[in-house]
Amino acid sequence: MTRYQYLADLLAQRIEQGLYQAGERLPSVRTLSSEHGVSISTVQQAYYLLEERQLITPQSRSGYFVTPRKAAPPVPAITRPVQRPVEITQWDAVLHLLEARSDEQTLQLGSGMPDVGQPTLKPLWKAISRVAQQQDERLLGYDTLYGLPELREQIARLMIDSGCQLGADDIVITTGCHEALSISIRAVCQHGDIIAVESPTFHGIMQTLRGFGIRAIEIPTDSSSGISLEALELAFEQWPIKAVVVVPNCNNPLGFIMPEHRKRALVTLAQRFDAAIIEDDVYGELAFDYPRPITIKSLDTDGRVLLCSSFSKILAPGLRVGWVVPGRYFDRVLHMKYIVTGSTTTLTQMAVAGFISQGYYQPHLRRMRITYQRNLEIFTRLVRQHFPCGICVTRPQGGFLIWVELPEAFDSHRLNAELRDSKIQIAVGSLFSASGKYRNCLRLSYAQTCTDKTERALAILGAAVERAMQSCSPVHELATASNDWGEGRASGKEQR
Amino acid sequence: MTRYQYLADLLAQRIEQGLYQAGERLPSVRTLSSEHGVSISTVQQAYYLLEERQLITPQSRSGYFVTPRKAAPPVPAITRPVQRPVEITQWDAVLHLLEARSDEQTLQLGSGMPDVGQPTLKPLWKAISRVAQQQDERLLGYDTLYGLPELREQIARLMIDSGCQLGADDIVITTGCHEALSISIRAVCQHGDIIAVESPTFHGIMQTLRGFGIRAIEIPTDSSSGISLEALELAFEQWPIKAVVVVPNCNNPLGFIMPEHRKRALVTLAQRFDAAIIEDDVYGELAFDYPRPITIKSLDTDGRVLLCSSFSKILAPGLRVGWVVPGRYFDRVLHMKYIVTGSTTTLTQMAVAGFISQGYYQPHLRRMRITYQRNLEIFTRLVRQHFPCGICVTRPQGGFLIWVELPEAFDSHRLNAELRDSKIQIAVGSLFSASGKYRNCLRLSYAQTCTDKTERALAILGAAVERAMQSCSPVHELATASNDWGEGRASGKEQR
Repeated sequence: MTRYQYLADLLAQRIEQGLYQAGERLPSVRTLSSEHGVSISTVQQAYYLLEERQLITPQSRSGYFVTPRKAAPPVPAITRPVQRPVEITQWDAVLHLLEARSDEQTLQLGSGMPDVGQPTLKPLWKAISRVAQQQDERLLGYDTLYGLPELREQIARLMIDSGCQLGADDIVITTGCHEALSISIRAVCQHGDIIAVESPTFHGIMQTLRGFGIRAIEIPTDSSSGISLEALELAFEQWPIKAVVVVPNCNNPLGFIMPEHRKRALVTLAQRFDAAIIEDDVYGELAFDYPRPITIKSLDTDGRVLLCSSFSKILAPGLRVGWVVPGRYFDRVLHMKYIVTGSTTTLTQMAVAGFISQGYYQPHLRRMRITYQRNLEIFTRLVRQHFPCGICVTRPQGGFLIWVELPEAFDSHRLNAELRDSKIQIAVGSLFSASGKYRNCLRLSYAQTCTDKTERALAILGAAVERAMQSCSPVHELATASNDWGEGRASGKEQR
Repeated sequence: MTRYQYLADLLAQRIEQGLYQAGERLPSVRTLSSEHGVSISTVQQAYYLLEERQLITPQSRSGYFVTPRKAAPPVPAITRPVQRPVEITQWDAVLHLLEARSDEQTLQLGSGMPDVGQPTLKPLWKAISRVAQQQDERLLGYDTLYGLPELREQIARLMIDSGCQLGADDIVITTGCHEALSISIRAVCQHGDIIAVESPTFHGIMQTLRGFGIRAIEIPTDSSSGISLEALELAFEQWPIKAVVVVPNCNNPLGFIMPEHRKRALVTLAQRFDAAIIEDDVYGELAFDYPRPITIKSLDTDGRVLLCSSFSKILAPGLRVGWVVPGRYFDRVLHMKYIVTGSTTTLTQMAVAGFISQGYYQPHLRRMRITYQRNLEIFTRLVRQHFPCGICVTRPQGGFLIWVELPEAFDSHRLNAELRDSKIQIAVGSLFSASGKYRNCLRLSYAQTCTDKTERALAILGAAVERAMQSCSPVHELATASNDWGEGRASGKEQR
């Protein structure tokens, strides 16, 4: 970390802690320079950075001031899904979300797409070129069912950071995390079985259950600590649950990292009721804090955890390179792998293996962690600025997804339809529930660097939310009553 | 086609028709030259080609002679599988076959791997390089569920030759034909349903049924004309069959092309019993005769045919680019596509689209059709030469797979174990039956150009078959009794 970055972080922290209040003038460049023993230009660069992050505002000839802002909205309370197994619905809404992603004109605020435009990803193109130049005939033939040995070797090494001591032979390469989840679910469950899931949870998991005729029981989930183990235990006692699917690290959509003691308790619980744990770690490497959080797999003592992951969120989803560590279910997972795709594309496996072995992975990962953390700061600031009061917003600990909870009566489907003309796409909350709950919620992505377009989109979004909230009157009162934040709001207010 | 190739084919035809008998001296180079009005060197090249194809043998100073050979063994009779739905077994044997394919020392006579070493495939490497150089960010992002529009466009055009008038929007791209079959089966069937299949049929189809808890009823199948429509009708009357899976063009493993009137009759039958038809056309383009045979899909009037195919057999399986034309099941197939892999690797889709649009596909396909047809000639000649009598061999009309039926008591599993030390791998017949029938059969591939190694392998194989046949005495008598073929046999006989 450079000096100016260090200084900027220090000042940001002081602002966050209230040492410098909103609207207060910050120390002059000269003062800070002598106070911290750094050059004038270092302080200036630090201030530019903070300005970029919208934490401070320059006023001509009088220096920098702390940008006034609203208090952080509260985080959502623990969820309260239906407490019985249900058949999964919502496919139409998922399809709608997926179809919107191919429209280049639309601002994809609802997509799970990472930022693939960073310079640290450039060597991937070279890795692909190199593979093509080598004309290795292995690339054209059927790969083994297990996947490319050199890639499995690299993955085993990467996973040490997540607490897993694995060999290449413990890993099966898949066509993205999607296939990893799909074959894992199918390996441990039959048609008609019941699986417990976090609520809300990733729609891909839910649709897979639907496709295989498996029912889901949604378990209350806290946006800071994850799935309620107490509720899960009750569910286990009441229903013959075969497996639990969780996204414990940088959860999609809630952004939490499940505390380690709760991960341990989950393993114990699964052992007590002899259930499998399917762990989706696809965002795990993108935790803001270093070292990254451990996986539940690393606590697995009897092979009941199936760890699923991919390079889709860290590198690029178009590669379709994922993996599964199936533990005791290895043979069944392998059989399902054969059934589903036979083998994985060799070319992209080779390119990824080359990218990692040449040392490009870690620098890229570091960059993405910092980038997403900064994006989050700016994004939440904009959300605070443009959204009305009376909402709850998650505080993600990694990844690039945020969950916004609006008053109960709010209908995100209607909002989505409204936004279509403005070419803005969001993920409606009901996608993340088996039974279509969370219509009053949105999942937004801050993967892409905030531009004026993003700000305009959030202003439109905020205004639409405000209008909708006004039209359901009790909510309106709440919103107005608690609207005691100091600053003027952009377009939203004017449009009333 | 060059002049010398034309002449060689003409002479080959005459030999096949018996105009030139085994051991007979062929016309001199000079005679042929004047007879056909071609140059001496053209005749010489034609003779070299025939020599390479082992149809003629040069004798120093006396010219060329027709190579003596045995009569063609008969084709297998129509199969007689179990006439009720069964649960599928045989996964262990399939896994064994798949694992052998990564051993580079082993001669893969049992694999479904095409020849990827041909020069007409070289532009594919360039297509991949070009994609990498363009650094098109679409390559990194999620593709649409449907697949790359330009590739679907190209596929729609290619399929005109198979009688199908399709638009790009009728097609969904998949991770190989494997995924196409898997999602098609799952789209039309539930757990516990019954599907009718040809017997024998591709093990990938069978294992998919197993994975989804679907039972198979194997229908008697003729090695020249395909599935018995009479037996299928009886099965329809007796069981609630949801769908029929067929490989009507260049069948795997029997090599037949189903006659057009039988394709029509199959569609009528499926309509009568309201069943879906899942058509695997993965070898269809490799039919020896031009124009290629039509697909059943081209006869589909009410959208009940799901056509599955890929570039795995024509270009290269490592690409994992396939497709499905799901007809009326489009939405369900799309849902299953989302569940199974989410989307298909973009890079390989772009490379294939580039390869086709730049005009490399048709020349490559032509070359492969000719290559496989020649390989087949040489391969069957070697089989005749090295295998004992009392066997039946299919006469493939395309593709690169041949099916050898040995006497009932023969155990191909034991043979396979025996061959392991010699580093030869075959596909045991029982892989191709739901209930493990056809232990007395082998599927062999002639995709790779015959080398001395292939000949040695077939000699070892033939000898092992002969030994095994001797050990089961009635078969032994049969083999000896009918062993009236004119020529001495290689290693096999000496080892007695």
